[in-house]
Amino acid sequence: MRDAYIVGAGQTAFGSFPEESYRSLFATAFDRAMASADALSPEDIDEAVVGTLGVGGRQIGLSGPAVTEHVGLSVPTTRVENACAASGYAVRNAVQAVKSGMADVVLAGGYEVMTDASGDATKYWLGVSGETEWERLTGTTFAGTYAQMADAYLHEYDATVDDLSRAAVKNHANGAKNPHAHLAFECSLEDASEGTVVADPLTLYHCCPTSDGAAAVVVASEDVVDDADFDAARVAGVGAASDRVGLFERDTYTSIPASERAAEAAYEMADRNPGDVDLAEVHDCFAIAELLAYEDLGFCGRGEAPELLREGATDPDGDLPVNVSGGLKSKGHPIGATGAGQVVELWKQLTGRAGDRQVADANLALAHNVGGSGGAAVVTLLEGDQ
Amino acid sequence: MRDAYIVGAGQTAFGSFPEESYRSLFATAFDRAMASADALSPEDIDEAVVGTLGVGGRQIGLSGPAVTEHVGLSVPTTRVENACAASGYAVRNAVQAVKSGMADVVLAGGYEVMTDASGDATKYWLGVSGETEWERLTGTTFAGTYAQMADAYLHEYDATVDDLSRAAVKNHANGAKNPHAHLAFECSLEDASEGTVVADPLTLYHCCPTSDGAAAVVVASEDVVDDADFDAARVAGVGAASDRVGLFERDTYTSIPASERAAEAAYEMADRNPGDVDLAEVHDCFAIAELLAYEDLGFCGRGEAPELLREGATDPDGDLPVNVSGGLKSKGHPIGATGAGQVVELWKQLTGRAGDRQVADANLALAHNVGGSGGAAVVTLLEGDQ
Repeated sequence: MRDAYIVGAGQTAFGSFPEESYRSLFATAFDRAMASADALSPEDIDEAVVGTLGVGGRQIGLSGPAVTEHVGLSVPTTRVENACAASGYAVRNAVQAVKSGMADVVLAGGYEVMTDASGDATKYWLGVSGETEWERLTGTTFAGTYAQMADAYLHEYDATVDDLSRAAVKNHANGAKNPHAHLAFECSLEDASEGTVVADPLTLYHCCPTSDGAAAVVVASEDVVDDADFDAARVAGVGAASDRVGLFERDTYTSIPASERAAEAAYEMADRNPGDVDLAEVHDCFAIAELLAYEDLGFCGRGEAPELLREGATDPDGDLPVNVSGGLKSKGHPIGATGAGQVVELWKQLTGRAGDRQVADANLALAHNVGGSGGAAVVTLLEGDQ
Repeated sequence: MRDAYIVGAGQTAFGSFPEESYRSLFATAFDRAMASADALSPEDIDEAVVGTLGVGGRQIGLSGPAVTEHVGLSVPTTRVENACAASGYAVRNAVQAVKSGMADVVLAGGYEVMTDASGDATKYWLGVSGETEWERLTGTTFAGTYAQMADAYLHEYDATVDDLSRAAVKNHANGAKNPHAHLAFECSLEDASEGTVVADPLTLYHCCPTSDGAAAVVVASEDVVDDADFDAARVAGVGAASDRVGLFERDTYTSIPASERAAEAAYEMADRNPGDVDLAEVHDCFAIAELLAYEDLGFCGRGEAPELLREGATDPDGDLPVNVSGGLKSKGHPIGATGAGQVVELWKQLTGRAGDRQVADANLALAHNVGGSGGAAVVTLLEGDQ
């Protein structure tokens, strides 16, 4: 099996862009990714994998080819959808395509336009990634699903609403330094803990926004990398897992088993362990999800996530910075763009392109992307050359 | 690159099954595929790729994991969607996963439930795979799009409506022998040419039905095949291509360029040529599509497809039997199941399981699956051991 590398990556800002279309957003991400992989041109791309949930009334069938045609690519394009993990899976598929020998250079990306839906439509639209019969059709929103997890967690462990808020406060502070962040402002512990309740115990500041945006990465084989000068990050491992789509069908509310299994697979493929990780982007769609991620990914034991946050271990200057980009909470969460967007951030960090939020001396970086409330998850480990 | 093999395959009947759900259909296809690969058990499956258009109001996000959880699989599941080519691409992704070394046994399948939509909803639902702004939203149905191709073809070449009908008559005769066919009855040339006009020049008999159904195939590495006794068909080649989603944006109405490029890629990978093909399942969503397929796949020159049909070259006892299953026309077209269903048919033919419709001495078999009016296409070449 030959190695796969990320050799270029780019994204749009995440936010509300009524003047943009799904195609123009994708084109911006594509152009930035190609510009960053300047030893390659679009003609070098062998195929593309595009992640989007894409049920918002735009191109529904063939939504992958619809964006690659717009940027002038005439290559096999596969659309993948695993809810909010769509483009995390797109990156994984691109890695498989490269490792299979069937492609040398693969574009993996994703997009979503969400802010043009009215309030109720957004609720419905997001709900489609929940379990249909007993979650969506009974009116359970995703905030509601994650609130059940938060409630169970606060009940089971020595944790408080402030511990949830600490994840949000950290991520807002990080996002305030990210020119691509949707909610690029800081918030206080009081703001977060005493904010409007969305789904008890989650307040507004514990919930990520709905965003527009796109992200794209260029995955290339070791042969391509050997032939030219790239700032490349090796894909050391990539693991994925699926689980019951409905939260109520799982044995636990205080972990996401698919995350745990995806991480195990990624660590095994990379022959590394959680202690080796220097930097991570985790799927904090709701604040509780960041705490569960610390534990599911092996950064700490069960019930110990609050302590990591209290001691600042996951702050930018801590032992293991998490969501330096701002995470879904502050950077934003345009569903199909999120997973690829995490990889964009890590590639920038590993190649010294992260500007004001640059983390020093990171070698092994982890991206963690979850679909729905945990029906799917994918974990990617990237290795820099430091 | 290690070789990938089809080692088992199964499908439901295609038809109208109000008593079934998308999950029960998928489970039947899965059970039949596993039963046919009796050296393997579900625990041997490393991952799954599921194709579905899936916008009919059932599970929309995470519709891949929703069916694999139902059959008791707890493996990474990727949903792919490329309109009517969804599960043709799913098979291709499975081949890449096996060749990448990241998986040894991959389940590839697809499903669709279409017959529970009312008339207008079906029209809308299918339309989502057309180009959005200038086809779907202006009311162009798929029959309308393919009628434009048929009209152009009849104008450009020495061809008549009867030539279109010959494809339908042949496929109905074939489907009448297939216990899994949706429209398992014969029709005459008069029936077909003088049927109710759906979109001039296409009559009812030139159009495939909307169907419910599911199909699944088991793709395994050469190592797995070497270790156990399988009736295996080698995946000699698989090629894919995308194109402009809207027909009106392409240079030609009398070919599907994505089919041509997908076929070229598959032939090149297999180091074979069109003359080597012994048996084919082609994407005859409308009768004109079968004629275009003959030419795009290199079975004959431009404008020569009618002659192939007139002389019976693609009849079951001809030089190159096409759509022995009945094709989309008679076997049916449950969108996400169609591509995998073609591979099911070819695997059965290559392993002597095709019952009354068994073709003798086929070695190289070709499956051709198109998304929309040609925004995506995928061609798979399977090699038997004869």
